[in-house]
Amino acid sequence: MAQYNVAPLENLVEQFEKMPGIGHKTAQRLAYYVLNLSKTEAEQLAAAVMDAHTKIHYCSRCCNLTDKELCPICASDSRDHSVICVVETPRDVTAVENTREYSGTYHVLHGSISPLNGISPEELTVKELLARIAQGGVNEVIMATNPTVEGDATALYLSGLLKPMGIKVTRLAYGIPVGGDLEYADEYTLAKALEGRNEI
Amino acid sequence: MAQYNVAPLENLVEQFEKMPGIGHKTAQRLAYYVLNLSKTEAEQLAAAVMDAHTKIHYCSRCCNLTDKELCPICASDSRDHSVICVVETPRDVTAVENTREYSGTYHVLHGSISPLNGISPEELTVKELLARIAQGGVNEVIMATNPTVEGDATALYLSGLLKPMGIKVTRLAYGIPVGGDLEYADEYTLAKALEGRNEI
Repeated sequence: MAQYNVAPLENLVEQFEKMPGIGHKTAQRLAYYVLNLSKTEAEQLAAAVMDAHTKIHYCSRCCNLTDKELCPICASDSRDHSVICVVETPRDVTAVENTREYSGTYHVLHGSISPLNGISPEELTVKELLARIAQGGVNEVIMATNPTVEGDATALYLSGLLKPMGIKVTRLAYGIPVGGDLEYADEYTLAKALEGRNEI
Repeated sequence: MAQYNVAPLENLVEQFEKMPGIGHKTAQRLAYYVLNLSKTEAEQLAAAVMDAHTKIHYCSRCCNLTDKELCPICASDSRDHSVICVVETPRDVTAVENTREYSGTYHVLHGSISPLNGISPEELTVKELLARIAQGGVNEVIMATNPTVEGDATALYLSGLLKPMGIKVTRLAYGIPVGGDLEYADEYTLAKALEGRNEI
């Protein structure tokens, strides 16, 4: 409404509306939530936004997000530094970590090769990955890019670069999800699951 | 994960998680959104939070939120200052304004009387409403509190105070919602709609 307009409130609503998955109504609700915060809480929120922005940068080895020179995983002695798991985003690192099954290190590409969106290997952290492997000590690179056309293309492109360097390159297994229902699995997934069947 | 932890990021996720309707996954998504902002955009977001918090206060007349001494509605000459619409929250003002059918002023109670939640009339802006009416010039007070037990109790309580002052007190009509279906209307609403039937 033009008639009823509180500039700082409208501005805050607009800021929230820009966020992913936040519509106008939710943005209003969040703005009113901020208004109801105490002064200290509002300051903490504003500081958290700025802190995350100024303190977080890429790990100098694996390109994951960190507030130190090396991320905790690259800096850890208890991780297996001879295995690198290549993922598209920092969120994928969290996903793999949550399995508690992986003790190697990571490399975050920050995207996948996508000619349609104008993303070439130069935009990704491929150069950093190759430099890292050239230093030696790496035996295996696990491709954990997304099971999409772009993710597959990226995995294929990287394996083409890495195999001549004498590195074992593997790919996450395709198959039916645990707890899933065969009836609802799409034909491509099912075909991949058949293809990759294991002896029991 | 204890192993993989970036303090400023975790802190920002926690801040977002406190917001209404925001779970852990959404909070993470918002935090990554903030990380991807440019420095200027992050500063604008942080500033919007602080601005909304420091600049917005209650209108000295109607207790609605504003960044000026009087809210635009109270300050406007084109509004009918002899009619006051009493609502529970600033959001209700926006809702009534959106009808474009009301040209009077508002009074925001900032809640409703609720003995169960320990909210007595002293916690609301009842005192301000009475002082405002005592100054004269008000003919009608429209109770637009929510159609709940608390909202009704508040309307009844206020009408008991205002009627002796010679003020006409009205209540929003109950009835079936426009576009609703009789079959799905609950019996209380339908009974109220029958009771309030109008000649056509």
